[in-house]
Amino acid sequence: MKYIKKILTIEKVKVRDIAKKFDTPTYCYSYNQLKKNINDFKKNFESFSPLICFAIKSNTNVNLIREIKKFGLGADVVSIGELMMALKAGINPKKIVFSGVGKTSKEIAYAIDKKILLINAESKSEIKEIDRIAKNKKKKVQIGIRLNPNTDANTLSQISTGKKENKFGVNEKTFLELVNYCMGSKNISLKCLSVHIGSQILDHKPYEKMLNVIDKIIVKTKHNFEFIDLGGGMGISYGDNNRKLNYTKYNIAIKKFLKKHSTKIIFEPGRSIVGNIGFLISKVIYIKENDEKDFVILDAAMNDLMRPALYGANHKTLTSIKTNRKSKKTYEFVGPICESTDKFASLKNFQKLKEKDIIVMCDVGAYGMSLSSNYNVRPKPAELLIEESKIRIIKKRQKHKDLM
Amino acid sequence: MKYIKKILTIEKVKVRDIAKKFDTPTYCYSYNQLKKNINDFKKNFESFSPLICFAIKSNTNVNLIREIKKFGLGADVVSIGELMMALKAGINPKKIVFSGVGKTSKEIAYAIDKKILLINAESKSEIKEIDRIAKNKKKKVQIGIRLNPNTDANTLSQISTGKKENKFGVNEKTFLELVNYCMGSKNISLKCLSVHIGSQILDHKPYEKMLNVIDKIIVKTKHNFEFIDLGGGMGISYGDNNRKLNYTKYNIAIKKFLKKHSTKIIFEPGRSIVGNIGFLISKVIYIKENDEKDFVILDAAMNDLMRPALYGANHKTLTSIKTNRKSKKTYEFVGPICESTDKFASLKNFQKLKEKDIIVMCDVGAYGMSLSSNYNVRPKPAELLIEESKIRIIKKRQKHKDLM
Repeated sequence: MKYIKKILTIEKVKVRDIAKKFDTPTYCYSYNQLKKNINDFKKNFESFSPLICFAIKSNTNVNLIREIKKFGLGADVVSIGELMMALKAGINPKKIVFSGVGKTSKEIAYAIDKKILLINAESKSEIKEIDRIAKNKKKKVQIGIRLNPNTDANTLSQISTGKKENKFGVNEKTFLELVNYCMGSKNISLKCLSVHIGSQILDHKPYEKMLNVIDKIIVKTKHNFEFIDLGGGMGISYGDNNRKLNYTKYNIAIKKFLKKHSTKIIFEPGRSIVGNIGFLISKVIYIKENDEKDFVILDAAMNDLMRPALYGANHKTLTSIKTNRKSKKTYEFVGPICESTDKFASLKNFQKLKEKDIIVMCDVGAYGMSLSSNYNVRPKPAELLIEESKIRIIKKRQKHKDLM
Repeated sequence: MKYIKKILTIEKVKVRDIAKKFDTPTYCYSYNQLKKNINDFKKNFESFSPLICFAIKSNTNVNLIREIKKFGLGADVVSIGELMMALKAGINPKKIVFSGVGKTSKEIAYAIDKKILLINAESKSEIKEIDRIAKNKKKKVQIGIRLNPNTDANTLSQISTGKKENKFGVNEKTFLELVNYCMGSKNISLKCLSVHIGSQILDHKPYEKMLNVIDKIIVKTKHNFEFIDLGGGMGISYGDNNRKLNYTKYNIAIKKFLKKHSTKIIFEPGRSIVGNIGFLISKVIYIKENDEKDFVILDAAMNDLMRPALYGANHKTLTSIKTNRKSKKTYEFVGPICESTDKFASLKNFQKLKEKDIIVMCDVGAYGMSLSSNYNVRPKPAELLIEESKIRIIKKRQKHKDLM
């Protein structure tokens, strides 16, 4: 995504042309950015060729997952629905791991039937349930146990998952107990230790701490884990600050860890694969003047993009045509929904806008569409995949009649 | 909803029987509570027989809206989708008002064609757009103008809408300008002054202040408004505190106002009509012991009920069977979604629970299903309407194949 002669383009397609042809609001994804993200990720960690399981929850578009699959990635799923979606996209079950604190009996049975690589269990009760179902089915099931390493990921509290007050994983004491439980079961094959300390992590140090915790606990278990699943959480750059996780430093820490432990590393990246490939294209319905600021009312709303309302997230906001005129007043970008939370950003010195202008919110490829809803009986946006000058509709815009 | 011999019942149906027959998570609505809410509302304000327009955004189930319609209520809609839904439910267009800051040209044209009672405009640009479309269609359109009375509703900032920093309505100066504009238009008939200062308001004093502001501005306009739309926002009691808006005091304030102004009052209640009629029935998947607290992992999640994650809302939590055993540890009620925000409540001294127990979250009739999503590829719950011992499925549970 860049300005060419002041015209914003995604790959080789002008944003204003997309708005005209496909209407707004519309999600667009850049295929070449996806390719670059995956290749960069692979290249950085290539010395130990990890199994990369794409975190389906970040983007559940089956056509996009199909493209991701073509690069050899597996899937990290957290529900039977996501597992079905991953299988539908053609992902090999032997590259699928199933995470989540609340897997139901039905979900576990389905995962066993589909012979996926790993069920990463998160509690004593879950392991007992897996054991019971596996016994009934006369199967031996490969599992992982998720450790809660009590490591602060230094990220937002809403997306921190690896501290002892979080619902995820088990503490060291329970972990050791559960390893023993698995050793005594005929129907469970303990293959993996998994962790995931949070989302949007920008500093490699929490990962180093996490690896130290894992190192010590492996020694205590005396168990040979075929896989260590390090989860995801790799932070990307939102807005203009250019902060993102330094992969190289994380890689060094893992290589050091692998000198002591011979195991296959699993990653579960979501945001770092699809976050910056996505753009939400919208139109200015009205500009509403106010004393201290002007409201720029867009046709995209919190139902289309929930992250600002839910996490206070900021997304870089651009115009489809660059001009040099600036607004003297602050612009508050809002949606048309009848809630004060339906607000995207407050920006000073923004380019002077007029009604019907096209506005693009960037870096919405992860947790954009997957968190969208039909609040205010609003149909969901269309989704497009753009490669060079080729545009493919990978999901049609919902119609009102689908909601009636 | 009450315990009969320690068994929780909604009307005459046992909650545990609902869970068994319809599975979980499931939304249930009490018909008799709905009837009581509407009748109480009408009775309290009967001296001036207001037009009561149900705020569709609070609950968009077409079958429920149909029941509400049978009590003579109209509708407050905020999008073309909600307008379609209201019409589908059989609501008379002459009882429909259209609110919202971002009505598109298409939405305005549709509302004009359907001859609804009022389009409540929220900006200069919108009024000009209504004027332009009405002129093209050679119609005279009835509108209201929404005033932002700059009144603090003393509610949560996310649901406050009547302060000058909120995107809603226009300030006094603009209001007076727009009244003049409408007077000069052949295609606009200015019928209404509308306000709406926020949601879940528990104190009648902000309403008194709001009425004072309206009183003064009407005098300044010298215009005879056929309708004054006071919006909604009447707060209900969540949890055990029994605080709710005192209707009687609000009624007194309005009657005082009506002594000076001869006009028809419109209300736009949502939460106060459907909030306390709704229950979300879920099942305990696992109880996960932790050092300081135990996690009660439910099969309902933030995608089913967003209010706790979005607003930090608390919903009263009950068991389907009452016992006298208490848990020594705090229970943290969470959903199975892979987010730390997927958390409903932390409760001390709660009844001792076991896995498979049925848990009910109360007062979820408003902004429950309407804010729900398919996050984590989770199908939406079923919705049931219960009257005495009769159970009607008013929306079927979504299937996974609908999401693929």
